[in-house]
Amino acid sequence: MPETVFHVDQSKSMRDQAVPGHNRWHPDIPPAAQVRPGSEFRIECKEWTDGQVRNDDSANDIRDMVLDYNHMLSGPVGVAGAEPGDLLVVDFLDIGPASNIEVAQGREAGQGWGYTGIFAKENGGGFLTEHFPDAGKAIWDFHGQQATSRHLPGVRITSNIHPGLAGCAPSEDLLAKWNRRERALIDTDPNRVPPLALPPLESGSLLGGLSGEARDRAAREGARTVPPRDHGGNVDIKNLSIGSRVYYPVYVPGANYSIGDLHFAQGDGEISFCGAVEMGGYIDVGVDLIKGGMDAYGVTMPIFEPGRQEPRYTEFLTFIGISVDEDGDQHYMNATIAYRRACLNAIEYLKKFGYSGEQAYIILNAAPIEGRVSSIVDIPNACCSLYLPTEIFDFDIRPSSAGAARASRGSLAQAN
Amino acid sequence: MPETVFHVDQSKSMRDQAVPGHNRWHPDIPPAAQVRPGSEFRIECKEWTDGQVRNDDSANDIRDMVLDYNHMLSGPVGVAGAEPGDLLVVDFLDIGPASNIEVAQGREAGQGWGYTGIFAKENGGGFLTEHFPDAGKAIWDFHGQQATSRHLPGVRITSNIHPGLAGCAPSEDLLAKWNRRERALIDTDPNRVPPLALPPLESGSLLGGLSGEARDRAAREGARTVPPRDHGGNVDIKNLSIGSRVYYPVYVPGANYSIGDLHFAQGDGEISFCGAVEMGGYIDVGVDLIKGGMDAYGVTMPIFEPGRQEPRYTEFLTFIGISVDEDGDQHYMNATIAYRRACLNAIEYLKKFGYSGEQAYIILNAAPIEGRVSSIVDIPNACCSLYLPTEIFDFDIRPSSAGAARASRGSLAQAN
Amino acid sequence: MPETVFHVDQSKSMRDQAVPGHNRWHPDIPPAAQVRPGSEFRIECKEWTDGQVRNDDSANDIRDMVLDYNHMLSGPVGVAGAEPGDLLVVDFLDIGPASNIEVAQGREAGQGWGYTGIFAKENGGGFLTEHFPDAGKAIWDFHGQQATSRHLPGVRITSNIHPGLAGCAPSEDLLAKWNRRERALIDTDPNRVPPLALPPLESGSLLGGLSGEARDRAAREGARTVPPRDHGGNVDIKNLSIGSRVYYPVYVPGANYSIGDLHFAQGDGEISFCGAVEMGGYIDVGVDLIKGGMDAYGVTMPIFEPGRQEPRYTEFLTFIGISVDEDGDQHYMNATIAYRRACLNAIEYLKKFGYSGEQAYIILNAAPIEGRVSSIVDIPNACCSLYLPTEIFDFDIRPSSAGAARASRGSLAQAN
Amino acid sequence: MPETVFHVDQSKSMRDQAVPGHNRWHPDIPPAAQVRPGSEFRIECKEWTDGQVRNDDSANDIRDMVLDYNHMLSGPVGVAGAEPGDLLVVDFLDIGPASNIEVAQGREAGQGWGYTGIFAKENGGGFLTEHFPDAGKAIWDFHGQQATSRHLPGVRITSNIHPGLAGCAPSEDLLAKWNRRERALIDTDPNRVPPLALPPLESGSLLGGLSGEARDRAAREGARTVPPRDHGGNVDIKNLSIGSRVYYPVYVPGANYSIGDLHFAQGDGEISFCGAVEMGGYIDVGVDLIKGGMDAYGVTMPIFEPGRQEPRYTEFLTFIGISVDEDGDQHYMNATIAYRRACLNAIEYLKKFGYSGEQAYIILNAAPIEGRVSSIVDIPNACCSLYLPTEIFDFDIRPSSAGAARASRGSLAQAN
Repeated sequence: MPETVFHVDQSKSMRDQAVPGHNRWHPDIPPAAQVRPGSEFRIECKEWTDGQVRNDDSANDIRDMVLDYNHMLSGPVGVAGAEPGDLLVVDFLDIGPASNIEVAQGREAGQGWGYTGIFAKENGGGFLTEHFPDAGKAIWDFHGQQATSRHLPGVRITSNIHPGLAGCAPSEDLLAKWNRRERALIDTDPNRVPPLALPPLESGSLLGGLSGEARDRAAREGARTVPPRDHGGNVDIKNLSIGSRVYYPVYVPGANYSIGDLHFAQGDGEISFCGAVEMGGYIDVGVDLIKGGMDAYGVTMPIFEPGRQEPRYTEFLTFIGISVDEDGDQHYMNATIAYRRACLNAIEYLKKFGYSGEQAYIILNAAPIEGRVSSIVDIPNACCSLYLPTEIFDFDIRPSSAGAARASRGSLAQAN
Repeated sequence: MPETVFHVDQSKSMRDQAVPGHNRWHPDIPPAAQVRPGSEFRIECKEWTDGQVRNDDSANDIRDMVLDYNHMLSGPVGVAGAEPGDLLVVDFLDIGPASNIEVAQGREAGQGWGYTGIFAKENGGGFLTEHFPDAGKAIWDFHGQQATSRHLPGVRITSNIHPGLAGCAPSEDLLAKWNRRERALIDTDPNRVPPLALPPLESGSLLGGLSGEARDRAAREGARTVPPRDHGGNVDIKNLSIGSRVYYPVYVPGANYSIGDLHFAQGDGEISFCGAVEMGGYIDVGVDLIKGGMDAYGVTMPIFEPGRQEPRYTEFLTFIGISVDEDGDQHYMNATIAYRRACLNAIEYLKKFGYSGEQAYIILNAAPIEGRVSSIVDIPNACCSLYLPTEIFDFDIRPSSAGAARASRGSLAQAN
Repeated sequence: MPETVFHVDQSKSMRDQAVPGHNRWHPDIPPAAQVRPGSEFRIECKEWTDGQVRNDDSANDIRDMVLDYNHMLSGPVGVAGAEPGDLLVVDFLDIGPASNIEVAQGREAGQGWGYTGIFAKENGGGFLTEHFPDAGKAIWDFHGQQATSRHLPGVRITSNIHPGLAGCAPSEDLLAKWNRRERALIDTDPNRVPPLALPPLESGSLLGGLSGEARDRAAREGARTVPPRDHGGNVDIKNLSIGSRVYYPVYVPGANYSIGDLHFAQGDGEISFCGAVEMGGYIDVGVDLIKGGMDAYGVTMPIFEPGRQEPRYTEFLTFIGISVDEDGDQHYMNATIAYRRACLNAIEYLKKFGYSGEQAYIILNAAPIEGRVSSIVDIPNACCSLYLPTEIFDFDIRPSSAGAARASRGSLAQAN
Repeated sequence: MPETVFHVDQSKSMRDQAVPGHNRWHPDIPPAAQVRPGSEFRIECKEWTDGQVRNDDSANDIRDMVLDYNHMLSGPVGVAGAEPGDLLVVDFLDIGPASNIEVAQGREAGQGWGYTGIFAKENGGGFLTEHFPDAGKAIWDFHGQQATSRHLPGVRITSNIHPGLAGCAPSEDLLAKWNRRERALIDTDPNRVPPLALPPLESGSLLGGLSGEARDRAAREGARTVPPRDHGGNVDIKNLSIGSRVYYPVYVPGANYSIGDLHFAQGDGEISFCGAVEMGGYIDVGVDLIKGGMDAYGVTMPIFEPGRQEPRYTEFLTFIGISVDEDGDQHYMNATIAYRRACLNAIEYLKKFGYSGEQAYIILNAAPIEGRVSSIVDIPNACCSLYLPTEIFDFDIRPSSAGAARASRGSLAQAN
């Protein structure tokens, strides 16, 4: 087991750790640990909401979530010799839930269980928030590398464990560019619910080892962690699982690499925003450098090689969607709408078996579905497809002349 | 070998076949053949342009392509007992190039070779037409189930053979809906190049067994074959390969199922519009019916189960993109832009190895890449990813401290 | 489609072809065709018994099989420049059943169907001949790349099409070595039924272009085609499917490569001796040379790289066996007995679902099972395992508290 | 994390644990823990030699190994309600090395590293002991789910972590049958080195909670743990990895299930006897019962369904062997010899790249090779094949005209 360079006590808030992490991106946040190229080490992580979600049958916690705190990141880790223009090579050697590193002490997120949530439209929303505007939650119980949910009877998924969020600190210039372009977008419709983007926000900010004026400045400028950006960030790519090798652009001396938002499992898209099986835990990584790699390979965003241990599913039922919206209006090559329609088609299908729409929505988040950009040139319709692994169900979901095996299939945890 | 119910002589135009096919969707086109549920049969297909492309080293044919003729479809095939509301179950039993069914007779598309083209911006365009506005072409030589191209040295791909285009005839109502919504889109910018959508067009239309006034009316109303729509159509999904089972909605009595646009290979997205390895050939299918299946399963667009014989690649280099456009402007959850940026990132990378941008663009079309909607909720950035199988190259494309193995890598066929 | 260098008319015996093949291995058999390194070409093949098996519901043809004629090979193909000590590189580009190359003309083996047989103990036998001593037969109907059998209801298999038998001609010395060592074995129990090995046999021999005294001599000396030997030969390896690259030792100038015994599908072991789905057909190959490759790589038997298109199964039910025989006697590290016991365990299991032992035996031949040498060091028991893909059955074969889904499942074709 | 029902302190011998395990099979050994059907729990395990092997560069520890102690098993675990004739359903939920559960305390086997050994012919031997009679050792360093060895430069393997040994306690009758048949084998050549089988041996025996006369009797009768037998036992099947579900026959009330011999990785065959990457660690299992399942399914040995997370390799170089021994003598359908020849062929090949024969031998043990019974009916030659994943090497091992990339590749730890 490699040395732990960033430790968290899962029973405490990230704010109260001996060395706290951060929940904003800013170049001034100092490294919480230092490592050398060629080394391997462990980073421990709080689940992304810092423990706001309980293992119970109410979605009030999801409904009332304070989003300002998210995501709680571990790091930054400084890498000796890293300079802007390098590629930081990061191997994801192993990843596991918090339950594998310490015994439960009272209430603890990620302790042998995880959750998937639907955020209310008024508080975060999600990809299908117009269709499913209310908060909902499913609790997943971990059985080693599999998970089941009392809120989703009939479903068993195999883990594709991964961090949702990781990247090197932005340079001052890069951060300014992010803030500029996102502000410009917000300004086109500043009162939208949910908002078009999330500007810097002092409230709830956590900035690692910064203090005083430096801290306040970083709180005013620091980029929120929600979107993926040039440096990677919250890419939420399910294939970044154990065994992956990722090449990250370096923007500041020392790279200042941070990581968090561990997921026990997720499908492509993470469509409900809180759509993975969220958990706290640990990740073991190895690091190295390719000096001057950004130029040498023309790399401006992270690239990666997936690992060899993603779960093998070979039987899928596939749904497609095109860029005609729910009102029947035609859009030009809009893959977002096409994928939304594919998701909705899958949900309508699953409802025939007795699941509620909200349950089906959650299944598409947590199960290892594949979401594909199938064709993007056949004007005016983009075509996206959604591959649902049939083997996650303990009944046969394929169409037949016998009709759908409708049954009572429980319900999600809901807000009251 | 099953009986051939739709025959084409590859040396002749689709117009000149004993029983011609069609290149518009219209409910009045009568069946060219009749089959019963439970039967298996062969359909032969012209490649989609009806033979406009030559096996040579000039892209003039791509530049001068008459798009009005495309796509040449085989059928319709009437299925006894099929009624609106049913699901037509179609098994793709086998698919092969024209070379497997007849010996070459002079110039013949699909005769042991295929092609991938970049359409000029003025004539069709493609996903990256702003970046690569000129016509280009690569010829692929088939080696059994593999293909290489003299225009793309260093690349060998394994076939994921499939039809790009298939579906049941629309009802009169469905057709009217298509025409209405696409016209509304065109009207928002009627002079755009390339156009926003393709309205019905009498010029170049072929309407199977229709004649006289009925033919003229269908020519005026018939939907163009380019986009995927509710019935499936030109979905260009690479996984619809041998062994797939597809469930198509039925809209007219007899279903009137047509198929065409065979591809020897393709990646997700078919990003250059003529992006698959295009060929003529045959497809063996089995058909059956699920009576009333649309309602029973809540199905309004085709769904399918992929087959077991897609080529197995396990090593990928993955590129990501977010919905910030090439000018640096931020867009809200735009998966189309995110996927475009992922494609462009991959192209920049491949250029470091000596390929031209156009060559790299073609590689991303024909190779079995996977295009994923990775996250679609992390406002404001959609994140898409592109998985490039490293094993298609005869050199190592992974990053290392040694730098990219730059070499002279030939060039595409170009227009003069 | 590559040029056909060895043609067979499937309606005629191999003896009556314009250029006949051969069914013995001998260095003097002259090439039937000449090719150059770097070329690609087609070879057509009769099924291995030269058409002795009919598509009917009697196993009399299996019972009365004249084994002296088998296996009918196509070739030899001479490769320009090949010399002893080289490695002949052969790419299996494509393989297909006879039905894909010509229309049925009366009775014809391999015409859209294949068969799997159990040889009677008195005539060939098989791996489990003590348990299943009588002749039996299953006819398989091809549905593109899948097959079903009216003699095995409930089973559908996906093709892993391959040649069972291929290799370069032995040198005179190598042939003498084969004959010497096999004769020595026979002499230990010359009257055994079935025999321990098959010595050269003039009766039924076919020797390609040889005639006169040379032919008679080759008939007296030529090695039978049944066993795999140093040159490869009848290896019956299911993974030598489309896309494989094989490196064969060369023993005579020109290599003189022959091939035959095409299988639509097979599991590991081919346990009933006629255990694959046997068919006539074609194989497209590409050839090249590695000069002096035998020494350079220490290769004395063929090696190969499997292709990418084997069918993907991921759910298996696995049976094991150890080297304790059916009488309870302990044997030392005997993998043959261990694998036999694994096969018998699988057969007992399938019988609980209503299949006869003979049907189960056939299923283990034709289905893409995997047979593994799991442990071979834990004295005194070897342990072998048999992976049966559950997805070939249209019912659930996994154990549960509900018990086995017993049903009437038809019967094999039997001899009368 | 499930409750730990069998705990081991990795710094102590199995003999000195609070509740010791056992290293003989006997029905009288009382359960060390009790569980109920439907429960999930953790079992901790010592590595199989109880800590006799050091992380150093000498193979003296392998040479001097006291084999009488092996294998140290954890358990038995009694399952409430289990009766003879039932099937015990065991899900392998998760498995990990000791390093994941406790920090190293001085010398400790399995602490973030494992080993693979070649036993000397005089002390245990192995599959190729006539070829490699001397002791040797490779130490593997774990990097999360991958491992490298300083004794095998150029190789990196991905874990297929699994228990080598597990099963329910035999009944008195079954134990007597084992002892009888193995004694009969030994009596055929009682002085052989290595021996034909291992009879009961009081020396070194550990019998869990037994004491006094009962202990002494069990020590005299208890079956050694080396061979796989009817109940499973030391099957050493690499595919029994995370996610597997195993169905074990129950012979005594309560089932009395024991497990041990954890392997970080292994290929088929475990050919050097100590051939896996051996380690201590933990396994999380879930248990259930199928009452009367042995009869209901005709099951007399364990059967299993593999999990979904075995590492995905798709490129292999395959070696074959036939049942002609190293002296050129022909054997009848001997799969053991055929597999040995395939192993030797692979070793000769790897030697061309600079590995010693002993190194190559170790690679074939620890790497996820597949060993197949390819054909077992083509008299007189069995044909076995060995699939070596090419992607474990950091250089290209495929044949080419360039010849083998010979380099200095270090050496194993050896005995002095």
